[in-house]
Amino acid sequence: MIADRLGSIVGPGGVLVAPSDLAGYRADSTHHAPDGILCVVRPSDTAQVAAVVLACRAAGVPIVPRGGGTGFGGGALPVPGQAVVVLSTERLRRIRLVDPVGDVLVAEAGVTLHEVQAAAAAVGRTVGLDHGGAGSSAIGGNIATNAGGNNVLRYGMARDQVLGVEAVLADGRVLAPPRLLRKCNAGYDLRHLLVGSEGTLAIVTAVALALRPAPVARATAMLGVATPRDALALLGLVRRELGEAVSAFELISRPSLLFHLAHAGQGREPLDTPTPWLVLVETEATSRHLALSDAFEAVLERALGDGLAVTGVVAASEAQRRALWTVREGIAVAMGEAKFYMVKTDTAVPIGRVPDFVDRVEAAMAAAAPAGSRTMAFGHVGDGNIHVNVLPPEGGGDSALREKAPDIARCIEDIALDLGGTVSAEHGIGQGKRAALARMLSVPERDLMRAVKTAFDPDGLFNPGKLFE
Amino acid sequence: MIADRLGSIVGPGGVLVAPSDLAGYRADSTHHAPDGILCVVRPSDTAQVAAVVLACRAAGVPIVPRGGGTGFGGGALPVPGQAVVVLSTERLRRIRLVDPVGDVLVAEAGVTLHEVQAAAAAVGRTVGLDHGGAGSSAIGGNIATNAGGNNVLRYGMARDQVLGVEAVLADGRVLAPPRLLRKCNAGYDLRHLLVGSEGTLAIVTAVALALRPAPVARATAMLGVATPRDALALLGLVRRELGEAVSAFELISRPSLLFHLAHAGQGREPLDTPTPWLVLVETEATSRHLALSDAFEAVLERALGDGLAVTGVVAASEAQRRALWTVREGIAVAMGEAKFYMVKTDTAVPIGRVPDFVDRVEAAMAAAAPAGSRTMAFGHVGDGNIHVNVLPPEGGGDSALREKAPDIARCIEDIALDLGGTVSAEHGIGQGKRAALARMLSVPERDLMRAVKTAFDPDGLFNPGKLFE
Repeated sequence: MIADRLGSIVGPGGVLVAPSDLAGYRADSTHHAPDGILCVVRPSDTAQVAAVVLACRAAGVPIVPRGGGTGFGGGALPVPGQAVVVLSTERLRRIRLVDPVGDVLVAEAGVTLHEVQAAAAAVGRTVGLDHGGAGSSAIGGNIATNAGGNNVLRYGMARDQVLGVEAVLADGRVLAPPRLLRKCNAGYDLRHLLVGSEGTLAIVTAVALALRPAPVARATAMLGVATPRDALALLGLVRRELGEAVSAFELISRPSLLFHLAHAGQGREPLDTPTPWLVLVETEATSRHLALSDAFEAVLERALGDGLAVTGVVAASEAQRRALWTVREGIAVAMGEAKFYMVKTDTAVPIGRVPDFVDRVEAAMAAAAPAGSRTMAFGHVGDGNIHVNVLPPEGGGDSALREKAPDIARCIEDIALDLGGTVSAEHGIGQGKRAALARMLSVPERDLMRAVKTAFDPDGLFNPGKLFE
Repeated sequence: MIADRLGSIVGPGGVLVAPSDLAGYRADSTHHAPDGILCVVRPSDTAQVAAVVLACRAAGVPIVPRGGGTGFGGGALPVPGQAVVVLSTERLRRIRLVDPVGDVLVAEAGVTLHEVQAAAAAVGRTVGLDHGGAGSSAIGGNIATNAGGNNVLRYGMARDQVLGVEAVLADGRVLAPPRLLRKCNAGYDLRHLLVGSEGTLAIVTAVALALRPAPVARATAMLGVATPRDALALLGLVRRELGEAVSAFELISRPSLLFHLAHAGQGREPLDTPTPWLVLVETEATSRHLALSDAFEAVLERALGDGLAVTGVVAASEAQRRALWTVREGIAVAMGEAKFYMVKTDTAVPIGRVPDFVDRVEAAMAAAAPAGSRTMAFGHVGDGNIHVNVLPPEGGGDSALREKAPDIARCIEDIALDLGGTVSAEHGIGQGKRAALARMLSVPERDLMRAVKTAFDPDGLFNPGKLFE
């Protein structure tokens, strides 16, 4: 019945109800929702989104917004026991503006990140947002979840690229068009409230992004280091020489490397001497007058001379650069394709606390995880964001780990909180981390967030059961 | 009576009631409030702020928070007819943390921007926030008003430097300590809601700022250009050559220059050939491997060759650099010291619309302003933020201008709004621009902002009569 009503708004082809059609909407990168979807509605413009919202409101049916479906928190899926309409942004496909004079791009929510990146590159610009393989994510979802990625060190999170947001409110009214301004002190910043609200306050239909000068040159290296503390000292050295040109600074533990190599069936290590940790560092020049590769080689010599790095290699070609990135991104690929269960986390701590965090987690896992489990730490050390995953013993079953998973995740998250950190750095809360968020927030924070939710969506129409328990 | 009660919290020296003591709290940079202040309370730590809030709440007396008192909107002053307690942050003076490994600085609200800048510079870092002479502003006020300034092009607004905020809520509870995280996707971003809320949602008591690599070299030039359109093309050229190293790109109209020169009693022009507009461009290198000054000279040659600039000069010394900046900052100095009334505005438009904006404003002022008035445009063209001031005829009285001032300001603001702009780019709303904000906001935006205000401060304890009419 709601499907019929929605069909009259978006046209019959715009609503999906057949189980075979819904199959592609029942999962994200980590969660699965076998049922709870009444239908998927695919509006083609902002006015249709508003009409869909009003129809669902009238019928008392909650709406779960969905972009590319590549999230990690189950945010775009119903929670068990719900009966919802999934509002997919896949037909909101226009790039409305690419302006290299004003340095702004406006895209509708369903445009993919890859397409946005390509549109910016075509005019010699970048949007400063890149999260590796997940370029098929929708830009609306990137903004609604405040996506992170590999270049946060240089450009900030998704929110830091956003000039304006167009969104449909729970009463069907529209905040539009997105503002294109670099400076606007005109009341409360509703934009930043919507960014990262995970579809619980409004439905993002379009976004205005700042364009930045595109890199004209890159230099990439991998270094072997003894400890996370040496990695942080190395970051300091690289930044002293190259300033803000440092665009990525990733840390990879040896167990993470071995997991990736085993999965890829590859025996050859990226560096000649095995070290407990690898650092992947990349710098980007936006000026041809920056002698990047000379500077970069000098930095590495200094790092080796000072003993901050044990060994290292600089990519001499784009193919070598891709190969070094594969060492990092291959971990995520292997995780996605692994045949066994693993515990995944997304904590961050203040950058200076990363060494303490890693030490404490490794000690805690030795006690808390089943015997033989492998603790795998890797991530964006330049942002304080270390992903700790726990894998079952090599060749062993995963049932013991699965049983202890909630305790293990909680243990890791609590160490992060104790160091002034967060239970979610870049993946968001969705439905998977609601309990963790509840532990993290102070009572006044929780009260204020609930009050904001009530102010925007008093009847709980948008994405109920997300963020809050 | 409220003064006595507050004295018991902060100690007798912490409360000011004598008219002579209150004199320094009755004005900001543009507004004056001859009365309405019951007393000034100066708490020394966050706990005292919370106790003051509870005492004022119990007495039903509204609180006006005040930092350095350098604002432009009357935000730190009572509105006519009120009887308020002014809560000055001047005793919240500690720099709690300067961490060059984690690249974070934590300062209490009453620390001045100059002191914050010095603390960052001492460890080879910058906070990316600089608004010229007003370094005596308090960092808490900078954050509460989302201050702008001369380096927004490179670093963003004040909000873009903020990792975390400590604040006292209207019920006396405290959001603390400020988070130090680069990445945190944990519910709604309360931080960005507090930044720029002008003391109407909570009282900021401390702030955590990101540290960035400090510049190791600078190059500064002044160019004469024919039109704002040429200035934008020049910005494009400079960015193509130097990328994000462009840190300031300021536009100065000839009337603005002449006003400053006349005020300073100086006959000598900064460039040999007079042009309708001047551009001040500055670039900062954070790497010694960027050949800044060679690149910069090459850029200027190209600009002259292509006819984008008519004439130009590169600063060859720090003294020359200061002299070029004086051309820009001298306008604000002359404005502050002028013996006559003038209309001041703080609009911004999308960057690409700046030429249209200037054309339309000049045409409109020819009709709307009293005969002989001088229209003076200058500002941060790289951010789309052009300040338009209207001065009375040279040597003439200002009474005709004063009478028409509301219409003139409204005319300028409405042109900005028509071009997708804002009535306040960087100065905020305070009490001076409430009507303008009401015209700018859509009905849903206004409703959401009011709902947010109610959620944070249901009884209107904090800075009533600001932002909203």
